[in-house]
Amino acid sequence: MIILIKNKGAVMESTKDLEKYTYNLLAERGVTLEDIAELVLYVQKPYMPNLTIEECREHVASVLSKREVHNAIITGIELDKLTEQNKLSQPLQGIVENDESLYGIDEILAFSIVNLYGSIGFTNYGYLDKVKPGIIKKLDSKAGGHCNTFLDDLVGAVAAAAAGKLAHNEPHRVRHALAEEKA
Amino acid sequence: MIILIKNKGAVMESTKDLEKYTYNLLAERGVTLEDIAELVLYVQKPYMPNLTIEECREHVASVLSKREVHNAIITGIELDKLTEQNKLSQPLQGIVENDESLYGIDEILAFSIVNLYGSIGFTNYGYLDKVKPGIIKKLDSKAGGHCNTFLDDLVGAVAAAAAGKLAHNEPHRVRHALAEEKA
Amino acid sequence: MIILIKNKGAVMESTKDLEKYTYNLLAERGVTLEDIAELVLYVQKPYMPNLTIEECREHVASVLSKREVHNAIITGIELDKLTEQNKLSQPLQGIVENDESLYGIDEILAFSIVNLYGSIGFTNYGYLDKVKPGIIKKLDSKAGGHCNTFLDDLVGAVAAAAAGKLAHNEPHRVRHALAEEKA
Amino acid sequence: MIILIKNKGAVMESTKDLEKYTYNLLAERGVTLEDIAELVLYVQKPYMPNLTIEECREHVASVLSKREVHNAIITGIELDKLTEQNKLSQPLQGIVENDESLYGIDEILAFSIVNLYGSIGFTNYGYLDKVKPGIIKKLDSKAGGHCNTFLDDLVGAVAAAAAGKLAHNEPHRVRHALAEEKA
Repeated sequence: MIILIKNKGAVMESTKDLEKYTYNLLAERGVTLEDIAELVLYVQKPYMPNLTIEECREHVASVLSKREVHNAIITGIELDKLTEQNKLSQPLQGIVENDESLYGIDEILAFSIVNLYGSIGFTNYGYLDKVKPGIIKKLDSKAGGHCNTFLDDLVGAVAAAAAGKLAHNEPHRVRHALAEEKA
Repeated sequence: MIILIKNKGAVMESTKDLEKYTYNLLAERGVTLEDIAELVLYVQKPYMPNLTIEECREHVASVLSKREVHNAIITGIELDKLTEQNKLSQPLQGIVENDESLYGIDEILAFSIVNLYGSIGFTNYGYLDKVKPGIIKKLDSKAGGHCNTFLDDLVGAVAAAAAGKLAHNEPHRVRHALAEEKA
Repeated sequence: MIILIKNKGAVMESTKDLEKYTYNLLAERGVTLEDIAELVLYVQKPYMPNLTIEECREHVASVLSKREVHNAIITGIELDKLTEQNKLSQPLQGIVENDESLYGIDEILAFSIVNLYGSIGFTNYGYLDKVKPGIIKKLDSKAGGHCNTFLDDLVGAVAAAAAGKLAHNEPHRVRHALAEEKA
Repeated sequence: MIILIKNKGAVMESTKDLEKYTYNLLAERGVTLEDIAELVLYVQKPYMPNLTIEECREHVASVLSKREVHNAIITGIELDKLTEQNKLSQPLQGIVENDESLYGIDEILAFSIVNLYGSIGFTNYGYLDKVKPGIIKKLDSKAGGHCNTFLDDLVGAVAAAAAGKLAHNEPHRVRHALAEEKA
């Protein structure tokens, strides 16, 4: 029994440790909490005119504290990095390298993050994916030989989730924004 | 035993009957196969330049032949109609009437259609939901006192699903389109 | 502009109000917080031997505080009640009345709750759906002419979600339980 | 332009090629079409008493002809194989190696297959995951040092999807089965 516990203990990271590791991975790939907070501000400000960057940061941090989110991010970035190092088998290597539009597994991982905050996040996600503002644009350009097939979708998903969380936490602020907008 | 079978038989519609009923419901709410085919052409043509309206029609018809799709559409339209007739309890009546942005159940039903064709449909869905071309615009305007809280999302979902199906059925046509576009 | 705000204001319930309304609806349909907490204990105790009913109650209450959960529950129960009152159109009336196995919209609403807590909840959900312990059995028996086509799935989903939340909040307690179980 | 097309052409596999590659991968990991067909028979026969193994094979083959399914399977098996070869970074290497219960990405990929056939597949999936009949048991036992963290879930998902497709294709056979069962 003791051996079993030790074995498991060796690999079972605390959620806090996984969180730290996720932030480090994101930093290594050129993505900061601030970058994602700016995406949230971009996508949510039209509906919440008095939204501040501090609130966005806070909600991104909350999304990034979830174990389900860590798991999706560390798996996606691992696949991106293995692709850069040419370590995947064919045809998967080529598919991820070229961010093939019919692949879809990058979006499956991203949706697993968005889903945690209900259906409201999906419109935000789709919008970010089309417009590609800020850090998403930068990731998409593959500057410096990086493969970000998974990462750009994951970052968009974290931002969309944080925006959805903001709307759900403060429904009355959302309503006022809409009323003013339509007026 | 015979009674049980007869009981079940009384309610278990054939998929063909449900399909006919779904088309009738859509027609009653002002939506034709042609309307949805035009959405598909709109959203998919940039990726498949030689796409024809006939192909779009055919793929919409294929989506509309699925029992899962019938179930989502007849449930959503039922809720729209009951709302028009003021027959839902409060607060649900008010929530659906006003297409409240935090409701999300309309999108949940729509996603159940998009999901049937993989993750590729979600970008199309999000795009149609933002741009609101053709019939979606018309449904959204609530002309004539209609409540289309569910219907506009369901129609967008059928179109997005059909576009995704087109891309999956003919991956090589999608590729050529992209190559030419970038050239 | 003022009219718009007032209009919106009339229907936009606070999340707290929706929560109260959801509890009332559940009570009206014979489901208490305690019933759901017992499902959580049943499904999660094998993995967390020192789990208490108090903790289960607390996590069910947390799931039941989410607006996405309220929306799914009030929509599902509304459809159950309209079916009891014979107020849906055919063929939907018959389909919901008979809890037709190919319908699936009841499960779509339930999954929208489970999804909020990640993929871990789905195994619990499937298990509860097969074994039908406690309140789920009672709802499924349709005692007293009630239609619970949506409600039994929704209750199972809330319990599965709460169990998933427990596991995610206390990963180390889950691990110990597994180690001891295997020893 | 020519270069672009050639580049894309180099990696864009036809769906038929991906299908062949997927079967080869499954065979390499010890899974045959027959193994999965037997899971379908096991899970669906109670609802369709006259179901034959030939029909099961046919429906599994149909599920395995979809590009979305190929993508999920080749990605999951790649991660299993990289784990066996100790080629993932920590902590992901340990998480996949130990099939950690809070990981959930294996189930996310599996659900992307089940989702293609509607909500009906999820109960079958949950049931197979609990009972672990046939090939799933064998994969789960990790005989011979194999890591099948992703593969067992993917195989269960293909079987659950095929069972769901059977039910949807022949609703009247499902109904008769239920009527007889209850009689």
